[in-house]
Amino acid sequence: MKKGDQTRARIVEAARQLFERQGYAATGLQEILKESQAPRGSFYFHFPGGKEALAVAVIEAHAEAFGAGLQAALANAPDVVTAGRLAVELLAGQMEATACQAGCPVSAVTLEMASTAPALRDAAREAFEAWLGPVAARLEAEGLDPELARSRARAVVSALEGALILCRAYGHAGPLRDLSPLMPRLLGA
Amino acid sequence: MKKGDQTRARIVEAARQLFERQGYAATGLQEILKESQAPRGSFYFHFPGGKEALAVAVIEAHAEAFGAGLQAALANAPDVVTAGRLAVELLAGQMEATACQAGCPVSAVTLEMASTAPALRDAAREAFEAWLGPVAARLEAEGLDPELARSRARAVVSALEGALILCRAYGHAGPLRDLSPLMPRLLGA
Repeated sequence: MKKGDQTRARIVEAARQLFERQGYAATGLQEILKESQAPRGSFYFHFPGGKEALAVAVIEAHAEAFGAGLQAALANAPDVVTAGRLAVELLAGQMEATACQAGCPVSAVTLEMASTAPALRDAAREAFEAWLGPVAARLEAEGLDPELARSRARAVVSALEGALILCRAYGHAGPLRDLSPLMPRLLGA
Repeated sequence: MKKGDQTRARIVEAARQLFERQGYAATGLQEILKESQAPRGSFYFHFPGGKEALAVAVIEAHAEAFGAGLQAALANAPDVVTAGRLAVELLAGQMEATACQAGCPVSAVTLEMASTAPALRDAAREAFEAWLGPVAARLEAEGLDPELARSRARAVVSALEGALILCRAYGHAGPLRDLSPLMPRLLGA
């Protein structure tokens, strides 16, 4: 990775962690620069669109990161129900690793910005689509009607996103783990 | 209602609507005062603890409002699965009434403040408990083991909260309605 790309990646990662803990509006440029140890000029070089453009990059980075985890779960599991349980464990492990202090940055940005920033709303929708797509494809491969497969996959993404919020409020990963025994019902035939 | 109580209720309702659209940090005291047409002195009379104390009141008000809708659904439905579908329709109708511009203020405050404001985290957890409690009680009355009933009820609250977020990103109530046909699976025997 070139030095400029490394700086950009550091800025995105710092913003992602801050959005996960405290949301979009509470995260100032100053704090992002401090956490990423990036100079201000370098920030505007990589993100001429400012904080909103950075937030699009954060959503894209998170979409890719969780998407990779989901794809690995689907690749390693004998069936989609098992993959769903692996995804729950992946998220529960991440939640516990931060003592439930960090949630999903896509949800955070959506709740704060969907009504005023169409670019962020669209990026969030694309992140959700990127996650539910492979799940729906697997459900189809297991014999579900395409429309039903899509609806089921989106319901699972909803349930995971909601459980991540409840985990923050409860201070433990129980709300995520509630979903594990339900996976055969959510994703089964 | 006394005049002072009316002012307090107006402040809480204005803040609730603002948190629903743009979250906690983006909502300044000035905007709350303007929307509620309340004088600053009156704000500090009712909320000596400032914006954080107001946010606790917002969460409590929203917990009560959605809780009332949920209780009505449970009272009017022949079974818990039908009640779950009524709850989905209630939320979908509210989502559509704001053109998907307003979500759940409890989720918004949780994602922004759970890591730094224990009072808000606790209020959010109590809101979720207030919602899942009657659902779990009904599941128990329908024969489910208490622990399983609680876990199922919490999973439904997670799914609804997550779907509310996805609705913001998609710009329609489809993600909520994905949950309707799943209610027999989530809440059925």
